[in-house]
Amino acid sequence: MRTQPCLEIDLGNLLENFLTLQKIAEPAIAAAVVKDDAYGLGASQVAPLLYNVAGCRHFFVAHAVEGAQIAPLMDKAIIYVLQGLGQDNLEIFKQFPQLVPVISCPEMLAFWRQNRLVGRKPVIHIETGLNRLGFREKELAVLSETDKSEFSLVMSHLACGDEKEHFMNAYQLENFKRLKDLYFPKLPASLAASDGVFLGHDFHWDMVRLGAAMYGINTAPYRENQMKNVVTVSAPVLQIEDLAKGQFVGYSATYRANTNRKIAIVSIGYGDGLPRSLSNVGKVFFKKEEKLYEARIIGRISMDNVICDVTGINNLHVGDTAYLAADFYTLDDMGRDAGTISYEIMSRLGKNQRFIRKYVSK
Amino acid sequence: MRTQPCLEIDLGNLLENFLTLQKIAEPAIAAAVVKDDAYGLGASQVAPLLYNVAGCRHFFVAHAVEGAQIAPLMDKAIIYVLQGLGQDNLEIFKQFPQLVPVISCPEMLAFWRQNRLVGRKPVIHIETGLNRLGFREKELAVLSETDKSEFSLVMSHLACGDEKEHFMNAYQLENFKRLKDLYFPKLPASLAASDGVFLGHDFHWDMVRLGAAMYGINTAPYRENQMKNVVTVSAPVLQIEDLAKGQFVGYSATYRANTNRKIAIVSIGYGDGLPRSLSNVGKVFFKKEEKLYEARIIGRISMDNVICDVTGINNLHVGDTAYLAADFYTLDDMGRDAGTISYEIMSRLGKNQRFIRKYVSK
Repeated sequence: MRTQPCLEIDLGNLLENFLTLQKIAEPAIAAAVVKDDAYGLGASQVAPLLYNVAGCRHFFVAHAVEGAQIAPLMDKAIIYVLQGLGQDNLEIFKQFPQLVPVISCPEMLAFWRQNRLVGRKPVIHIETGLNRLGFREKELAVLSETDKSEFSLVMSHLACGDEKEHFMNAYQLENFKRLKDLYFPKLPASLAASDGVFLGHDFHWDMVRLGAAMYGINTAPYRENQMKNVVTVSAPVLQIEDLAKGQFVGYSATYRANTNRKIAIVSIGYGDGLPRSLSNVGKVFFKKEEKLYEARIIGRISMDNVICDVTGINNLHVGDTAYLAADFYTLDDMGRDAGTISYEIMSRLGKNQRFIRKYVSK
Repeated sequence: MRTQPCLEIDLGNLLENFLTLQKIAEPAIAAAVVKDDAYGLGASQVAPLLYNVAGCRHFFVAHAVEGAQIAPLMDKAIIYVLQGLGQDNLEIFKQFPQLVPVISCPEMLAFWRQNRLVGRKPVIHIETGLNRLGFREKELAVLSETDKSEFSLVMSHLACGDEKEHFMNAYQLENFKRLKDLYFPKLPASLAASDGVFLGHDFHWDMVRLGAAMYGINTAPYRENQMKNVVTVSAPVLQIEDLAKGQFVGYSATYRANTNRKIAIVSIGYGDGLPRSLSNVGKVFFKKEEKLYEARIIGRISMDNVICDVTGINNLHVGDTAYLAADFYTLDDMGRDAGTISYEIMSRLGKNQRFIRKYVSK
């Protein structure tokens, strides 16, 4: 009898993915993206591992508070803060000299000028086609030489790097080249995140920012994943029951049995980060004597439980382990079934304190 | 210049909702459901408030670890653990005498018999139509009188309590009555969660379990919400830019401007718990001189940012506050737009450490 779901994070595979990507991008510097608590997998575990074992010295977070969490663990790291600086995080920047703001608009540059941190050289984020954060060309055109000399790195971000043949890739690369040559000819540059690494050497520039692929996500979905799986999600079977023909399952009675079925109630739900959109669609897996069995999720997923159809799976017992995600059904697969992307699911799963969390290195 | 999103939780409204529901259900005992970290809103804040101010003494959590978090804050509370007990949480039950397991199947009852906790009387969960956790009738029929004398409360759970006229409500009530009379005629009983409270006195029995509605969710969506709003989500505008006709926005270039637009980039994304399914669908609000402005989300929501169309909203500035959820656009509204339910969104939002979290009582 067991009750708690389990989130297993394979740090060995994560490290191997980082090294594989680093090799592809050489001689570009391989920076690690550990924002959003390392996509939910635990920045306090992931960042020091890359720092100590892989010699990684450049990290990206979204918010200064995220940087503050890992800065004490890595004395000589440079931690770039993508959302930049403002009144609400200036004190954090002052406290942790490893934090370097990424400045993405004239207003933030003005704030920087009034609150310059001695010894820190920010990154400038420039816009090349994503139309998200970043200086637009008309804003770059009015920067003074003093302004431009503030920066240590120029970066941009691809919109469609996961689609190799998408016209946006060439368009953004061309834009990036042109703007960099025009405004920051001598500055080191960074354009590619994980997906850009697979687009070829032209995209690597001086630094690549390794995030999703390092965590095992397929950022080049036009071919088989070359990354190793990092995340395994499992939960115990709490109950196994017969379901008679005609009976309903779950909230709002969205599933009705048309024949007699056998069901298992598994101790994990959307409260644990399982997407509720897997209701009546997703899959749960069981391993029995070296064989893998697939069971369809039936009815609505609830906050703490999911119900699946285990008709025909013999020898299943209360307390057995149900797999929600693993190397044979990755978060990419789950994302496809759930109508979203693995990034969102990973980020959610990792935020849930109810999991028994295991860091392994096989 | 600001960078961080903000999650504001109105404990005054939460308390008022609890008292309103308690009044409707009187003389039934009003228990508070604080599982999943009080639906993400913070069990360590919510539970002691109800304990100290409202005199609430009965609480429900899903997992024993959740009970362990709040037990030290409430000496005389009884904390029922819905997922029950097993090898993986037995030590927690031993450590905190306030925790009482809910037993939902014969295997768990067998485990209880081998690991009985002196002085504790478990709850028996019986199945009446949801086909989730709970003893089925054939399992009740074989319980000995000694087995039956173990329990302090008999409970079940409604499948369609949020649809007043659904046939399942009468069906489950009838089932509950019959099974209780047959097997536990003298035991106190609990059937209704928040939604059941609005179904009338027949559903209240001896204890109601107040969760969703207390947190402001409309659990009776067939009429206007009678609960007060508890959650406000906001984030600062990081950047405002022109978007020229023909340009694309966001990952995979899913939005293209057909006319010249003005856009705002807001510092919140799916990494903060905003559902990615709001991409190209959801709304962002701005308050300017007492007026409320609505802006459509355009392009895909990314991990840290959301982009919205602010064409025609004048006087908007970098650093201004964008509202993602508030009393004028509740999580129920957001759930409708996102293709899910407010419960899932609330649970996700509350799990994110990147928020500036404010507990207020207006």
